[in-house]
Amino acid sequence: MASKQLTCATAKERLLRACRFEPVDRVPVWMMRQAGRYLPEYQAVRARHSFLEICKTPELAAEVSIQPFRLVGVDAIIVFSDILIVAEAMGMPLDVPDSGPVLSDPIRNFADVLRLRDFDPNVETRFVSDAIRTICAEVGPEVPVIGFAAAPWTLACYMIEGKTRGDVSRAKAALREEPAMISELLGKIARSTAAYLRAQVDAGASVVQLFDTWASELSHEEFRQYELPSIRHVFDSLSRPGAPKILFAKGSSIHLESMSESGAEVLSVDWMTDLAQARQRIGRRVALQGNVDPSILLQDESMVRQAVQAAVEKTGGQGHILNLGHGILPTTPVANARAFVEAGQQAMTKQSAPRVGNE
Amino acid sequence: MASKQLTCATAKERLLRACRFEPVDRVPVWMMRQAGRYLPEYQAVRARHSFLEICKTPELAAEVSIQPFRLVGVDAIIVFSDILIVAEAMGMPLDVPDSGPVLSDPIRNFADVLRLRDFDPNVETRFVSDAIRTICAEVGPEVPVIGFAAAPWTLACYMIEGKTRGDVSRAKAALREEPAMISELLGKIARSTAAYLRAQVDAGASVVQLFDTWASELSHEEFRQYELPSIRHVFDSLSRPGAPKILFAKGSSIHLESMSESGAEVLSVDWMTDLAQARQRIGRRVALQGNVDPSILLQDESMVRQAVQAAVEKTGGQGHILNLGHGILPTTPVANARAFVEAGQQAMTKQSAPRVGNE
Repeated sequence: MASKQLTCATAKERLLRACRFEPVDRVPVWMMRQAGRYLPEYQAVRARHSFLEICKTPELAAEVSIQPFRLVGVDAIIVFSDILIVAEAMGMPLDVPDSGPVLSDPIRNFADVLRLRDFDPNVETRFVSDAIRTICAEVGPEVPVIGFAAAPWTLACYMIEGKTRGDVSRAKAALREEPAMISELLGKIARSTAAYLRAQVDAGASVVQLFDTWASELSHEEFRQYELPSIRHVFDSLSRPGAPKILFAKGSSIHLESMSESGAEVLSVDWMTDLAQARQRIGRRVALQGNVDPSILLQDESMVRQAVQAAVEKTGGQGHILNLGHGILPTTPVANARAFVEAGQQAMTKQSAPRVGNE
Repeated sequence: MASKQLTCATAKERLLRACRFEPVDRVPVWMMRQAGRYLPEYQAVRARHSFLEICKTPELAAEVSIQPFRLVGVDAIIVFSDILIVAEAMGMPLDVPDSGPVLSDPIRNFADVLRLRDFDPNVETRFVSDAIRTICAEVGPEVPVIGFAAAPWTLACYMIEGKTRGDVSRAKAALREEPAMISELLGKIARSTAAYLRAQVDAGASVVQLFDTWASELSHEEFRQYELPSIRHVFDSLSRPGAPKILFAKGSSIHLESMSESGAEVLSVDWMTDLAQARQRIGRRVALQGNVDPSILLQDESMVRQAVQAAVEKTGGQGHILNLGHGILPTTPVANARAFVEAGQQAMTKQSAPRVGNE
């Protein structure tokens, strides 16, 4: 008995179905940091405007968000913004020199945490929702837009370190020496992040993603004790609008089982994680996103296509959003970004077993 | 029926038993980078001698190797050296400015690989074996000495990158674009490393450790295709002297099952890895080493003791060498290093079930 050929009517339907582990005709494809420096068209905008200007001007943010959709052909548009926007809205001064965003007055003690304010995302960060509205108006209802924020522990790390490349030792020391302060901080961030993401969904985001860069520094116990409840808080409070939730953590393999208890519909994994093993570990409870090594996009196109095919074979293309294992590198040739997207869109997907009823 | 109280006659017996997953009276304890900058006594030697002078003068290398044994009370002495010594012996110029060791003429092509030479560890790197002999003569046969080298892929990364902090994109590009060159390089390194470690065992090392810093950058397939066979080659050729082999890889959780097929008796894991989960994943095939977060040794002593107790409870203290999850940090207070070692030596160990016969 042959199964009927499945087609997804729109890119949005395909992405939502993939998030919910429902059968799809092919994998949806996008790339973390897809709106960014590897695109000459982004560089052209950046030459005229500062990073924060782009973030805070809905027309500019929408323009650079849409660029990879028009130029590279991705199946989803992630709004151009920065995870530290939430810290700024909570009252922390944000600078963005060329070396990257910096919180110039980092948290030093409990009083600093208490001074952080709840904010109204429809006022203080209205530019983000407006950017999403502009994107949606521009590309129409068939193209999914992804909203995002940092996971609470990751934002807490930036708030305590000010800026960080490499290590988060001050934040980890605080976690151990002042657990009450950290709990208060994570609680405040989680509440603000939940409201911030709800506003993005209200503005038109179909899916949201939490970035948890610094989960990789936490032990199993620390992750479960501090980070997991705060992520769960954010995700639980998004259950009403019903937008699927993606959780990305670099070095996530370690915490995969714990992450699958977060309420996320999708776990986004790095390239060191074997997708087939990951599926074996967490079953079909959650879908997977990822996980081609971004450095493969610095090689030739045939290697890019091979890597994409290998990734899709691991999952059979079901319950799988094709993406990179981390952000696209600034030196990536645009042709290779295009090859990545095309290869994903053409990759053989195993049709699921014949479905019954209205699944 | 009460089991007889087990005692290990010497520190060497205890370490060897722990490596082989045989019952022990308590966990053996040492720390990666235990001979190093956090010790004023090391700094004093370093003030008078360059890093390479210390490496290449057996009396100096022995002196700083023994310091943590005398001053901090560790149960094993790892010889003071550098993983790039092997690259130098293979013909690559090695410089050590204050910023760390650099190979000033990195590998660019196949011809560079072919020029690398096999070396006689009893000639070109005799200073390492002599340092081990000096340590053994100094501390006597009851104290175990650990020899070490880089795993082949990790040394290949340094050889191709010259120096590296952060990423190994040139090495990864070579892996994909010139797999034949990489295979040749890994084969040469594996042969040299095997001979180098055999010489260390012949000189008196009871245990050897391979450091595989950059395994964390490889995908599951790449690890299995390139790194695993080369590690296995090194370990297989050490089966004759019979010294147990420890394999350390930061970010190792990802490759844990594969690593357990390497021939290592012990896997050394980082602090993100849960020791109880790790044991569940790989069973009792191999013992574990680790895995306290080095940044905990920057907190107060009571936290250090707690973390040690928690680690030992995860394994019951059997088939477990207590260590850090990565090298000790240069800013660690010596008192905390001492607390780590003492807490390990006092930690409650679950006696195994009553043993029968001569196990």
